Amino acid sequence: MNQTTVDARAPKQDRSRATRQRLIEAAITCLARDGWSRSTVSVIAAEAGISRGATQHHFPTREDLILAALERMFELRIAQVDVGEVQGRPEGRARTVVLRLVEYYTGDLFKAALQVWTAAAADETLRERIVPLERKFAREVHAAAVRLLGADDSDPATHRMIQATLDMARGFGLADVLSDDSRRRRHVAEAWADQLAGVIAQAGEARSAEG
Amino acid sequence: MNQTTVDARAPKQDRSRATRQRLIEAAITCLARDGWSRSTVSVIAAEAGISRGATQHHFPTREDLILAALERMFELRIAQVDVGEVQGRPEGRARTVVLRLVEYYTGDLFKAALQVWTAAAADETLRERIVPLERKFAREVHAAAVRLLGADDSDPATHRMIQATLDMARGFGLADVLSDDSRRRRHVAEAWADQLAGVIAQAGEARSAEG
Repeated sequence: MNQTTVDARAPKQDRSRATRQRLIEAAITCLARDGWSRSTVSVIAAEAGISRGATQHHFPTREDLILAALERMFELRIAQVDVGEVQGRPEGRARTVVLRLVEYYTGDLFKAALQVWTAAAADETLRERIVPLERKFAREVHAAAVRLLGADDSDPATHRMIQATLDMARGFGLADVLSDDSRRRRHVAEAWADQLAGVIAQAGEARSAEG
Repeated sequence: MNQTTVDARAPKQDRSRATRQRLIEAAITCLARDGWSRSTVSVIAAEAGISRGATQHHFPTREDLILAALERMFELRIAQVDVGEVQGRPEGRARTVVLRLVEYYTGDLFKAALQVWTAAAADETLRERIVPLERKFAREVHAAAVRLLGADDSDPATHRMIQATLDMARGFGLADVLSDDSRRRRHVAEAWADQLAGVIAQAGEARSAEG
């Protein structure tokens, strides 16, 4: 491959990547704002300012586009959680991590994902494609929570409490869909974080006593 | 009013009530099975075997029908929780109540409601009608949880833990939408119930010490 070929190809690849990216971002915007039924491929392509032909070149079906959007939503959401290590005393640390996990399940990215999950609840084909992705996402966010909390996930009580934390955060997200629930949520999340810190500390003490 | 009028009217009222009820039940079935976009008034009327005209007589708009269905879903869901008093020692009692609350947020009734909430997330008109209903439902299920747990809701820690329990149960519901999550959920819910029992017991001890 000579230099000319590389130069000619690189900008084309960049443009292609940028087009793909714009479609994915437009899909997220449309889902969060307009909901599932109105987020058709035509509407998303128009939102992105990309022709229908170019859109179909990148994403042959609506599902292909939605799945790419779902992966991007996850990347952005996990990046909000995994924004840096959390230091400090156990209780403060648990509160910081729980509040980050709550953010993971709120906001426009969660709302866009909720549109896809709910559609998939009544659509077996879509569901079958989404389930393996969601399993992977669930493992990754659990692993991030364990690491940020500095917790011992091999302790069954700790493992379950971290799972419960993620379930609670998911529940907050759903409560926030209809009206702003942030004040109530904060108090509940902090009370919960203190419980979590207690369980993690207990497991730590049991380990020290054994060791 | 003479006896003849009453006799003539009563069966008509019964028929009318039965028609209304059939439409509401068909709406719940359609939402859970087919999702929001496919649950149009025509589809629901066909599912119920009721003419389009009679349907419009009972429910002038799709929203009217959906709201009536949402109220019915709540009645059925709360009836599952409030199925009888829970006796026994605090830990066992908390487990029983938490498992009932988890049921409140799973199953087809939850899935049907999820379709409505998610549509309302992207539809302000629908949202404005649903929010006051959902506030009322939230107060009622919280009150039922307090009563069944025999907890002192005036204790702030207890109040928040009961809120967290409902949030966690809602989160379980959403996790269960894509694939059967019942095994994982049961372990997490039981671990969580033990924490809740601890907080309730602590509040009780503090009250006894004061009294």
